[in-house]
Amino acid sequence: MPSPESRPEETPHRYDYIRDGAAIYARSFAIIRAEARLDHLPEDLRAVAVRIIHAAGLVETSDHLLFSADVGASARAALRAGAPILCDAQMVAHGVTRARLPANNAVICTLTDPGVPALAQELGTTRSAAALELWRPHLGGAVVAIGNAPTALFQLLEMIAAGAPRPAAILGFPVGFVGAAESKDALAANPWGLPYLAVAGRRGGSAMAAAAVNALASDRE
Amino acid sequence: MPSPESRPEETPHRYDYIRDGAAIYARSFAIIRAEARLDHLPEDLRAVAVRIIHAAGLVETSDHLLFSADVGASARAALRAGAPILCDAQMVAHGVTRARLPANNAVICTLTDPGVPALAQELGTTRSAAALELWRPHLGGAVVAIGNAPTALFQLLEMIAAGAPRPAAILGFPVGFVGAAESKDALAANPWGLPYLAVAGRRGGSAMAAAAVNALASDRE
Repeated sequence: MPSPESRPEETPHRYDYIRDGAAIYARSFAIIRAEARLDHLPEDLRAVAVRIIHAAGLVETSDHLLFSADVGASARAALRAGAPILCDAQMVAHGVTRARLPANNAVICTLTDPGVPALAQELGTTRSAAALELWRPHLGGAVVAIGNAPTALFQLLEMIAAGAPRPAAILGFPVGFVGAAESKDALAANPWGLPYLAVAGRRGGSAMAAAAVNALASDRE
Repeated sequence: MPSPESRPEETPHRYDYIRDGAAIYARSFAIIRAEARLDHLPEDLRAVAVRIIHAAGLVETSDHLLFSADVGASARAALRAGAPILCDAQMVAHGVTRARLPANNAVICTLTDPGVPALAQELGTTRSAAALELWRPHLGGAVVAIGNAPTALFQLLEMIAAGAPRPAAILGFPVGFVGAAESKDALAANPWGLPYLAVAGRRGGSAMAAAAVNALASDRE
């Protein structure tokens, strides 16, 4: 804590800005609702889109969303029933607001498991993809949030193609220039009826993936 | 580890994609260098811009960078000398690749300090901003990475205006619709000669802030 000589209230306000966290959220979401196109989305995904836009700082993000009609209901039901949230990156896991989770859901990221580097070498793939092999005991009915690695999303689809348990929802936000767009196209074209929400193209990231989880976890704005 | 029945090598490859992590990086950075405008940037910021673009998945990000000419040299020298990295959000801290840090630098995020909620109430500001009061002992010569809260960047500038120790570099990537653009404009207009790198406008985020740190920490691609 600061010493009495540097009492924080002595720091004069030099700039004029909103300092109230709740007011900042409310004003942000109002701006997004005024500027973003949302009416092409199912009603139960509009608040999710608002939070994804908020995370990216770009209103046009809603124009790039890919989704199945059932993803909102399926993800919400799974979370209320206590499903774990499986994340490909620590940044995603740390972006999930624990206070919003309806059932004290487990947030699992296996990327830093000590066995992963050897597994990646054995499988001839990235650590991000190899880490998904450790998801198998948790995968059935889970909510998957991929915010970094296209190889993780491809690996997930290949595991499901080969008979792995199916998650309740896949939130697909891998980002980047090699495989990101293709992995999300593959998710949207999946032949197994997997409920999914994704952002098309190169854009994505852990903040968007975490925002999608946070929006689906609670109706509070 | 998976059981013998579910040996990962039994998962057939259904999709054609690059599985080698190093090759993905190399190809990604080559695409960015081919597509992004970089020649308006100081030479020592071009690799930083490439990593920021990589984190966002959007090549036009380089068009929106704000910077002082000295920020690359100042941040690199500070990191090599062991300066701590002060982050406004856990997601930023978790995005810093420890293996790239030249001096086993401390990565500090005070947001989850138990004293912060009360301090925020006392100061009448957000927790993100209040958490910066706990940076004071570390601030002189530090590298600051703000990837979430505009109020944190405003608070930092107000602390410096009131005489707080000056960091070696400020990486300003707060994101959003209320205060983000304004806080970065204030950073770029700072009258104290603070070395800075930022992205103008609403865009930003923890991935960009961490990417800037990771690029400045090591010349390895």
